[in-house]
Amino acid sequence: MSETAASETELSFEAGAPTELFDVIVIGAGSGNSIPSPELAGLKIAIVDDGRWFGGTCLNAGCIPTKMFIHPARLVSHLRDAAHLGVTGTASADWAAVRARVFGRIDSISQAGEQYRASGEPNVSLVRERVRFVDESTLVTASGRRLRGRALVIGAGSRPRELRVLPFGPRVISSDDALRLETLPERITIIGGGVVASEFASLYHGFGAKVTQLVRSTVLSSLDADIRATFVAQAGAQWDIREHHDVVDATIPDDATSPIRLVCNTGDVLETDLVLVASGRVPNSDRLGTEVAGFDQELNGRLVVDAHQRVLRAGQALPNVFAMGDIANPHQLKHVANHEARVVAENLRRTLVATSDNEELVSNTLSPVPLAVFSTPEIASFGATLTEARDAGIDAVEVRQDYGGTAWGWALEDQHHFAKLVVDRVQGQILGAHIIGPDAAILLQPLVQAAAFNMPVQGLARGQYWPHPAATEIIENLLLNAKEECNA
Amino acid sequence: MSETAASETELSFEAGAPTELFDVIVIGAGSGNSIPSPELAGLKIAIVDDGRWFGGTCLNAGCIPTKMFIHPARLVSHLRDAAHLGVTGTASADWAAVRARVFGRIDSISQAGEQYRASGEPNVSLVRERVRFVDESTLVTASGRRLRGRALVIGAGSRPRELRVLPFGPRVISSDDALRLETLPERITIIGGGVVASEFASLYHGFGAKVTQLVRSTVLSSLDADIRATFVAQAGAQWDIREHHDVVDATIPDDATSPIRLVCNTGDVLETDLVLVASGRVPNSDRLGTEVAGFDQELNGRLVVDAHQRVLRAGQALPNVFAMGDIANPHQLKHVANHEARVVAENLRRTLVATSDNEELVSNTLSPVPLAVFSTPEIASFGATLTEARDAGIDAVEVRQDYGGTAWGWALEDQHHFAKLVVDRVQGQILGAHIIGPDAAILLQPLVQAAAFNMPVQGLARGQYWPHPAATEIIENLLLNAKEECNA
Repeated sequence: MSETAASETELSFEAGAPTELFDVIVIGAGSGNSIPSPELAGLKIAIVDDGRWFGGTCLNAGCIPTKMFIHPARLVSHLRDAAHLGVTGTASADWAAVRARVFGRIDSISQAGEQYRASGEPNVSLVRERVRFVDESTLVTASGRRLRGRALVIGAGSRPRELRVLPFGPRVISSDDALRLETLPERITIIGGGVVASEFASLYHGFGAKVTQLVRSTVLSSLDADIRATFVAQAGAQWDIREHHDVVDATIPDDATSPIRLVCNTGDVLETDLVLVASGRVPNSDRLGTEVAGFDQELNGRLVVDAHQRVLRAGQALPNVFAMGDIANPHQLKHVANHEARVVAENLRRTLVATSDNEELVSNTLSPVPLAVFSTPEIASFGATLTEARDAGIDAVEVRQDYGGTAWGWALEDQHHFAKLVVDRVQGQILGAHIIGPDAAILLQPLVQAAAFNMPVQGLARGQYWPHPAATEIIENLLLNAKEECNA
Repeated sequence: MSETAASETELSFEAGAPTELFDVIVIGAGSGNSIPSPELAGLKIAIVDDGRWFGGTCLNAGCIPTKMFIHPARLVSHLRDAAHLGVTGTASADWAAVRARVFGRIDSISQAGEQYRASGEPNVSLVRERVRFVDESTLVTASGRRLRGRALVIGAGSRPRELRVLPFGPRVISSDDALRLETLPERITIIGGGVVASEFASLYHGFGAKVTQLVRSTVLSSLDADIRATFVAQAGAQWDIREHHDVVDATIPDDATSPIRLVCNTGDVLETDLVLVASGRVPNSDRLGTEVAGFDQELNGRLVVDAHQRVLRAGQALPNVFAMGDIANPHQLKHVANHEARVVAENLRRTLVATSDNEELVSNTLSPVPLAVFSTPEIASFGATLTEARDAGIDAVEVRQDYGGTAWGWALEDQHHFAKLVVDRVQGQILGAHIIGPDAAILLQPLVQAAAFNMPVQGLARGQYWPHPAATEIIENLLLNAKEECNA
């Protein structure tokens, strides 16, 4: 499948505009920015991104800066809730100082990344413009440049969904602006019940804002019911969570000293100083005009890909058009986008570089997909709930281990948090794991590892040591409980 | 091998004293207290313990209560060190309140455990006396009772080592008393550089005491050199650590208002209010008089056992004498003692209960053995250092991942902490792992799991997802670094 790489000087003219030719055009400089690997050094690659910042959502407004804010917020939150542990005191996190520290670091990384992409490697060029599809291999930029790629990688991500009743503006912001506020508002209302909304609610609460979270349906509705109930109880003791509340009318004065007024379907009327709309994200396929190229997409605009990350058109995979990340999967998780980028990069190599025709494309088969919510309480989860597993016809069983049933839980004086495991009763395979409590995101990993490598629960706890009395004993006991429920 | 269980009424008289017969006598109610399993319900079992508290060191003075103190101490410590994160405030942990909370819980558990052992199961009785061996199957108690067992389990643990120059007393305490102090001393000097000494130094420092740690050789001398150096630097910024300092003379006034005066080999003279001697632990074999029974032991008094946990005499395993825990292994770790107790219980079943003669004894082959030091900074480790692996003739390589090289490390603004992995370069087997930093004890587990189940580093990081940006990305990157260094 190897062909000669497009040379620097190879240009064609179409309809009066010179078409710049590339071997690979990558749209989106988030995880897509990792595509130009050493193995592809012989290819002429364009990275296209018109983002407000270079490097994608995760780096600039998502996973990374939120956690940098959440850590100081937690130090404050932990102290607020420590009297029963014998600890007293007061602490506060300085919003402006944290913001300066976080973006002093993040923006430098983003800028250095942009500079490197612009001039760091001879085979890579950067197109810092919005693009739209002309056909499956051709893009036109906002300034009228035409770019054609032997292969395209669509990794343009997603953007915060705007609500009709609450259009974005100076006082109705999205997560893109949520960390860059000059000052922390006294009162903030967060619209949404997903991971992003819940993390920001916890974050603002930690910094001392009065938070109200309005959720049209239920908080974290895709997660296990017990996890959700515990989250609502624990988080609800910190900030005001209102499920089944939909904003039906909003009055948003330009004058920032006048309160915003929100009217809910329930009749509730709220006054607030700032609104964060975190009510889902929209794949950016519409901004790229992918419909012109005829790519298959879900109703919400997500591109449909095959196991090799190739985009489908009329149900058939296009050989040289790949997609990855939020625009191509439902997870909206950076670790998933990164993995897909590795699959795409390898398949680009096999398609454009490999000298043998015998190299099959690699498939993306990695599972399970864990997610973490870095709120307080923290949540981590992967796979099926018991209900989902049984609905799928599996003879599944669920076991639970409370933090409070372990020595570490005693140290925490924990009364609320737990881990659950869903297993195939016959085989002992781990089908799902659901944890709420301190360190959930890291406690999940031995279970991810076991599930990914098909290690059944039988023998798993007793086949390794678990240092006493670390928090991992929660997982050890969970696995022992599971083994008890499994046959053979 | 099954025989009829000794009946309640079966007594024999020797040398005038009635000998009480048991199927199993367990000496030590720490991990040994778990020996009476449902599988052994048909056996007449005596649990013997003369400990100050019922349930062993871990529950009453060790692993569990220390962590219950360390958690509030850390909340305070974290806040002291949070200005660079944008968090300011003050906090303090109330020693008396924490002590009351911890021992209110622990002592109840201990007392309930004792009551259950005394009267909770018809086949188990409790002997709350000191015992000494008469012969390999016979014990005499302090009050003159003679106990004989068809099988014996020696799990009598270890005790703090006393120093000649600093005999234990009201102002020179061991770890047994270190958490039960009425009030926290203003100044405390800790003698020792091991895990116990280092955890207590961190704990007292967190509560606000002025801590000096005197170490005859080096702190945590069995650990990786980089880990040790980082610990000394990080801990040394919190409290006064003096390595290569041996106390050669001590003046200890009875009057608690007069300072204790310690003179070191270096010429240093210290004044302090309390001394904690945490300078190693001594197996309790001497208190049992095991030499009368002729059991093989190490120079330090540790009993020698075979792979089935059977005690050796003149190099030969005794068929019905088992040992476990600190008296029989060098680790002094609760999770090891618990595992050995499970091996012993199963071998008792096979020896005394099983109806088939064909059941071979089970062996204790579980590895690797992880340890954790719950100080701040926290340490977790298992297996070989690079030096140890190379000294063993293995083509080993070491890789390192700094916390600061991951997004979670950015959130922590971490500049000091890291994980190291020692791997067999040819096979990719994990030979050792060494972590210093927040959450080290739980971050270690995926590596323990991989090592225990012989999963090589090749494919390990990329064969599973690691939720971004959790701290586990430190381990993911460590494994990727390792894979780069391995052949094939």
